[in-house]
This record gives sequence, C-alpha cells and structure tokens, in this order.
Amino acid sequence: MASIAEQMLGAHPAAGSGAGLRALVECLDACAECATACTMCADACLAEPGVAELTRCIRLDLDCADLCATTAAVLSRRSGNEDGHGAGGALRALLEACRLACQACADECESHAGHHEHCRLCAEACRRCAAACEALLTSLD
Amino acid sequence: MASIAEQMLGAHPAAGSGAGLRALVECLDACAECATACTMCADACLAEPGVAELTRCIRLDLDCADLCATTAAVLSRRSGNEDGHGAGGALRALLEACRLACQACADECESHAGHHEHCRLCAEACRRCAAACEALLTSLD
Amino acid sequence: MASIAEQMLGAHPAAGSGAGLRALVECLDACAECATACTMCADACLAEPGVAELTRCIRLDLDCADLCATTAAVLSRRSGNEDGHGAGGALRALLEACRLACQACADECESHAGHHEHCRLCAEACRRCAAACEALLTSLD
Amino acid sequence: MASIAEQMLGAHPAAGSGAGLRALVECLDACAECATACTMCADACLAEPGVAELTRCIRLDLDCADLCATTAAVLSRRSGNEDGHGAGGALRALLEACRLACQACADECESHAGHHEHCRLCAEACRRCAAACEALLTSLD
Repeated sequence: MASIAEQMLGAHPAAGSGAGLRALVECLDACAECATACTMCADACLAEPGVAELTRCIRLDLDCADLCATTAAVLSRRSGNEDGHGAGGALRALLEACRLACQACADECESHAGHHEHCRLCAEACRRCAAACEALLTSLD
Repeated sequence: MASIAEQMLGAHPAAGSGAGLRALVECLDACAECATACTMCADACLAEPGVAELTRCIRLDLDCADLCATTAAVLSRRSGNEDGHGAGGALRALLEACRLACQACADECESHAGHHEHCRLCAEACRRCAAACEALLTSLD
Repeated sequence: MASIAEQMLGAHPAAGSGAGLRALVECLDACAECATACTMCADACLAEPGVAELTRCIRLDLDCADLCATTAAVLSRRSGNEDGHGAGGALRALLEACRLACQACADECESHAGHHEHCRLCAEACRRCAAACEALLTSLD
Repeated sequence: MASIAEQMLGAHPAAGSGAGLRALVECLDACAECATACTMCADACLAEPGVAELTRCIRLDLDCADLCATTAAVLSRRSGNEDGHGAGGALRALLEACRLACQACADECESHAGHHEHCRLCAEACRRCAAACEALLTSLD
C-alpha cells in the first residue's frame, strides 16, 4: 500500500511528478523510518547493562534522529519549490548532512550489531536512509 | 510486514509485552503517520489559491504535527518505564493533548475534505491517531 | 532587554495583551531555556564516567526537552486562538504534560546536583519551567 | 548574564574552551532565538489579512525554524566530538544548510519588512544566525 507520504504528495498542488517524485517519496519514507529507529535504538542502548560502552552510539543515534526528522519535514514542503530555489540551496546541504549522519550512525551501530539486535536493525535503517538521500541528491542535479 | 517501531520494540530490553505492547505499537505508528500527514497538509494548503480560507487548518495542522512527533518520541522511550512512573504522569497528559489536537485538526480538515483531497486524507490520519491515543490511554489504566 | 519571544509577540496581529500575555512570554522563554538545558544535560550525563548511574536522568532529560520544545512551538501560534478554541483543549493538556515532565526531570536532576553542576543547573531550569507552565495554566482559567 | 547554553557548556565534561567555545555559544544562542522568531513569524503571517502574498515567507519560516532547532540540538551534543569525527562531517553540512536557510528566509522577510514588523524582526534574527553559523564554520577549520 502507498505510504502516507506518497498518498499526501499525490494530493499536493505542487508535488511534481516522475522520477523526482519517486525519489522524494522514498527519501521521505526512509527518513521517517530512520528517525524512529534511531530514537528507539538510543533508548534501548540506555536500557542495556553495558551502557557505558554505548555512549557514542546513543549520541550518534540522537543526532541522526534529529537530522532525519528535520529532513523529512523540509522535504514535506513542496510549495515554493517550483523554481528550484525554495530554500536557497539549503535542501541539498541538509540532504548531505542527513546522509553523513546516517552513515556515521550506521558505522557505529554495526560495530554493536553482533550483541544488540536493536543496533543491527538501526544500522539497516540508517543505510537505507543514506542511500535514499544520495539517490534524491542525484535526482536533483 | 512489521513496522520499524514494532521491530525495534521487539529488540528493546524494556519494551513490555502483550496487549499493552500492541496498543503502543499502534499508537507509535499512527503518530508517525499523522505527523507526516499534517506537515504535508499544511504545506498543500499553503499552495492552494484559496489559502486565505485555510489559515485555521494550517495552524491546527502545525500544532498537530508537533504534538504527534513529540508523542511518538516520548512513546519510543521505554527505559525507566518499568515502574510506570517514568515521567510522572506526563505521558498520560501528553496522550490526551495529542488526542485533542488530532480531533481538532480532523474536525477542521473534514470541513474542507470535499474540496481538498489532502484535507480528506489528513482528517483520516488524525482520526486514526486520536483513536490510537485513546486506546493506549485505556490500556494504561 | 526583551526576549525574542516578547518582541515577536509585540508584532503579532493576534497576540493578546495584559496579564495573559505576560504569562505567555514567561512560559515561552522558560520552555525554550529548559529545552536547551535538558538537551545539554542529557549529553553531559553521557560524557560522565558514571553514566550507568545516570540513565534515568538522561531519559527524563530527553522527554522533557521534547515536551518543552513542542510546548514552546504550540504557544508561539496565536492565530486562531481568539475564540479560545484554537486546539480544542490540547493546549491545557500539553501545558500539564510539560509541567509534569519538568517536575519529574527536576526531581531526578536534583538527586545528582551535588555531584554534577549540569544536573544542578538543569534542575533549576526545570523548576522555572514547571512554575511558568502552572502560572500560564492559571491565567487561562 | 550568561545564557543557559553558556552556563550548561561551562558544566559539560567535554565542552572544549577558547575561541571555539565562544563561537559555539553564540551559534547555539542565535539558533535558538532564530527558531523562535521563525515559528512566530510564520504564525503572524497566517494572521495577516494579506496572507496570500506571504505563503513563500511562511514556507521559508517553517524550514528555517526546523533547521535552526535541529542545529541547536546537534550543537548541544559535545560528547564524542573530542576527535572531531562526532558525526562524520554531518555538523559542517548542517551548519551550511542552516546558514543558507537563514539567508533565504532573511531575504524573503526583508521584502515584507516595510509592512510587517514581525518580518523585520525575523529577518534580523535570521541574519544574526547566518553570521553565527558562518563564524562557527570558520572556527572549525
């Protein structure tokens, strides 16, 4: 079934269309999913007996969750984007920031994936989101 | 397929189980979906020629998006909830605030649903989220 | 000097006036300050050698930061509040949730205030914010 | 008096010191202020009779508010930054995104500053924040 982002974009007066719209939907869905995964991974790490070994993971989870949530919100706003100058280049820099935060978080989470299933799942969500940001950046060129 | 929230809770050391966990997953998923719907409905309203008639809708969309995103984040944190005193009653009050914001936004969006598909979809997401908040509140009793 | 919230409300077409406006400004400023304090206290706790004793503190910090940020955002929106029905009672419930989250976080932070200056400062910010939420709730009656 | 960000950084085990810390405090304070200004400017625009002429302004306000809030949150996390690799370059890209969003919002708000005091104040806050982001980026080199 179509995600809520896809349904809402289908009803938006300024959503665009074609390959760009597909990349947008995929990035929006991946950002929303990754924000949830990172918020929960941070909290699951806090509940682990070995939390002292997981502080870098928690910290990167929190940064990544904030970046993904904001990227999703900015991507949700299509009005004023018709001329491609909606936010003066800010969108590209934000997508790059989100991609890098996802990458850093995925690297860290993967190093704990053997011990913590929440880190394994979170790393996967971060990889998907990093790839979706990269694909959307490419489609904007 | 299980949502990311459901997968992550399955790997959380302090997630709980049973009917309470089911209500939690459904509320988390509904809040995330509703936050996306409301952020996009606000922006779609901004892109409508008749935006001057939609300012109350935009305003309630923005409040509802903020409430849903925060409710999802607070619900994502299970550590420290073992004794039911995790946040001193704040969770119940927040769920009630989220339920009321969803209701107010749904009422307003429904009044535009005949003209704007984005309002119709958003009203549906708000109704689902209000119901999920109410169900979770009941399960906490 | 007037805070940015006070300056902006002075220029808002629907800000209101009098004692209600004063309580609003104070609550807005206290929420913004408390969100910053809690986000930083959580991170400072993560950097402490004794982080394993501070996980409940971190968790309550994160909840409180989210609640305060959302309360500030909702309070910032005055349009549509003229009739007092702006968000169908959601504002009161949100203020109560914020007050309770601040109280819970202050109680926890105070128990570490002897060892950690960041907890002492954060507890103070939480107490100010809880009081400001309560004062605003009273002024709404 | 020292801002809450300055006080909290003074108590943080990993805050750093010197010129870098000064640039950090100023950027944190400017981001928090700008997020408040933009959230309120968007709502004040919604309450104007001429809202139809202000939709681009509202949209840029919302993007800028989200970027500033997230930049403040990421800047608040100092743990794990000791090696300068805290978030794999994400911080620089985020500061650049924030700077550009502030610039775009300031340009738009300035074009309405003659008619709307809230736009004039918001443009000033955006200019201060853009400059603070640029200064912090320079100090990171």
